[in-house]
Amino acid sequence: MTPRGFAPDEIRARATAAQDLMARARIDALLLTTEPEIRYFTGFLTRFWESPTRPWFVVLPQGGDPIAVIPSIGAELMARAGVNDIRTWPSPRPGDDGTTLLAATLNAHGPRIGLPMGDETHLRMPLAQFDALRGLCPALDFTHDAGITRTLRMVKSDAEIAKIATACAIADRAFARVPDIAAPGVPLATVFRDFQALCLAEGADTVPYLAGAAGQGGYDDVISPATDAPLMPGDVLMLDTGLTFDGYFCDFDRNFALGDTGLDADHDRLVAAVEAGRAAAMPGARASDVHAAMRAAEAPAPGAAVRLGHGLGMQLTEWPSLSPFDQTVLQAGMVLTLEPCVATEAGRILVLEENIVLTETGNRALSTPATRMVRL
Amino acid sequence: MTPRGFAPDEIRARATAAQDLMARARIDALLLTTEPEIRYFTGFLTRFWESPTRPWFVVLPQGGDPIAVIPSIGAELMARAGVNDIRTWPSPRPGDDGTTLLAATLNAHGPRIGLPMGDETHLRMPLAQFDALRGLCPALDFTHDAGITRTLRMVKSDAEIAKIATACAIADRAFARVPDIAAPGVPLATVFRDFQALCLAEGADTVPYLAGAAGQGGYDDVISPATDAPLMPGDVLMLDTGLTFDGYFCDFDRNFALGDTGLDADHDRLVAAVEAGRAAAMPGARASDVHAAMRAAEAPAPGAAVRLGHGLGMQLTEWPSLSPFDQTVLQAGMVLTLEPCVATEAGRILVLEENIVLTETGNRALSTPATRMVRL
Repeated sequence: MTPRGFAPDEIRARATAAQDLMARARIDALLLTTEPEIRYFTGFLTRFWESPTRPWFVVLPQGGDPIAVIPSIGAELMARAGVNDIRTWPSPRPGDDGTTLLAATLNAHGPRIGLPMGDETHLRMPLAQFDALRGLCPALDFTHDAGITRTLRMVKSDAEIAKIATACAIADRAFARVPDIAAPGVPLATVFRDFQALCLAEGADTVPYLAGAAGQGGYDDVISPATDAPLMPGDVLMLDTGLTFDGYFCDFDRNFALGDTGLDADHDRLVAAVEAGRAAAMPGARASDVHAAMRAAEAPAPGAAVRLGHGLGMQLTEWPSLSPFDQTVLQAGMVLTLEPCVATEAGRILVLEENIVLTETGNRALSTPATRMVRL
Repeated sequence: MTPRGFAPDEIRARATAAQDLMARARIDALLLTTEPEIRYFTGFLTRFWESPTRPWFVVLPQGGDPIAVIPSIGAELMARAGVNDIRTWPSPRPGDDGTTLLAATLNAHGPRIGLPMGDETHLRMPLAQFDALRGLCPALDFTHDAGITRTLRMVKSDAEIAKIATACAIADRAFARVPDIAAPGVPLATVFRDFQALCLAEGADTVPYLAGAAGQGGYDDVISPATDAPLMPGDVLMLDTGLTFDGYFCDFDRNFALGDTGLDADHDRLVAAVEAGRAAAMPGARASDVHAAMRAAEAPAPGAAVRLGHGLGMQLTEWPSLSPFDQTVLQAGMVLTLEPCVATEAGRILVLEENIVLTETGNRALSTPATRMVRL
């Protein structure tokens, strides 16, 4: 049974590692506003982020422990997470929804405040509030966090990897039961609904993501919601899930054949591309190398496939990108998806996705690699 | 059967209504970046937003149709949603992840660009990208959207109300089946997992939110994830769900009694507070009036209950707030949660939440109002 939560030492070590990098980048404090950033440095896990109403802040000073500047509704849970310095206000409070409290905290720890502001980040607070905050902190320099949150979060600890592995195992078991819920005549929307229930039955805490498609000779895109169109003989059915265990995602898909799809050779190319990706994915290689290896194996690939996989963890998609432009040097502990895509004879696409973790010597599969399409 | 999607006329009418307000506020174009903002003006519905990797933009000019400036992976679905002007780039693309394309679009429609930047909003793009965008648009004035998106989204159409009502009916049916899954000895985490499956079985598309708690004499907070602690005789069990139908949420809770909780009188006070809220919730009243009516009925209430309900729709929580500070004048078509909270003798809390829609003459219940705690 994978334990829930993290040892207090691990949460503390993340802060210490960040502080080392902050010292080198001459950053006096980090300002964090999003769910994964705040959870990473505190262990604070709640689905309450689904409500966009209230802003939440954590300040990590160069010396000392993280400071939570949060709505009072979260104080109890943040304290249980192990944070000692919790400053609250009764939110929502228009006009000053934590702004003065945050300004006072930052002013005591400046002047250089690092914010995650690079690719795949955003600032989770109203823009007008950020402007007001800067007005209250005229002596502070709000600057780039020098990629510190990205650098740290990209390399997962053993405890994090165990949670992702557990999520993958749950999805493996749910995919194995798809023959129970999908057959010709069943509407795709019903398959989506029932598959999410299978994920829960197999142990998922939540199912934040499910995409998929069904069609003859492949499908057209992989982001559409399901329609009530029934599955047809000869269809390929693809389901791509991001379920969570203790706040960590898996992200992989499976293709199922409703009888004879004529796509077995295409699927074989996808399996070969995944194998080529795995052969290339080792410490010291670059993210772009893994992309190139898969790209070579999957030909002819559709032109739009600029990204054939990505990081995975507290979010469904994280850095790095397996893309020609991403020169990130891979390290043990990075968790990646390998997601090759082929164009079919029908002018459609077929996508396969697997999850792996990099080890000291290569990598280890987290999803049980698919070798062929299961027949329904 | 509630129809999915919206008539093209309705989506167009939203843009026209925004353009009327833009003319009055002398805004030349709106820049929208978040899921609900973009969906509201285009009908673009996908769970792909779970991935934080790519920025998405919609520009609504003062004259003409919405312009989607989006990653190419979304072009197919955006076209099916009915948007004609779609401009794409192969995202992710570090260094220019749509920035120049967006800048060119905005520069053609400026100079005054309105952004949602008030309470309960955020800018869903990297801060560094926003800085780069402003650098590419020196002649533009990025300004407050004058609350236009808030004003429009607060009042729901009949088609939107039907979707929320459907979500509520699904949750009603799922709550009715809680006796099948909860009993003394069952771990709370198992109840959470099984209740989400019940929501799906009853017709939910997704279950983005489930919170809850169980305890003797009430509970301490309503945002914690479930633990493996088993339910005990005498516990009150509370489940609060935000499930969706076609992209629209319900948000209400139910309290269940595992035998004798000693909390029947507290629950009666909550029911009375909901009734007081419903009596006050009518067109022309203010959000603060509804708060005051519930507050008077629920005494003694915990000090922290600054908000006793809120708007509901494409997000789990939306404007207005049923709070002393919110002077929003209520109108027919607004969908609200009524969420009184009482302090119990044990020093804990008990919360009840219902969903209503304002009509021309008062309001109509969307969740079937609870009258007592169901015994498990």
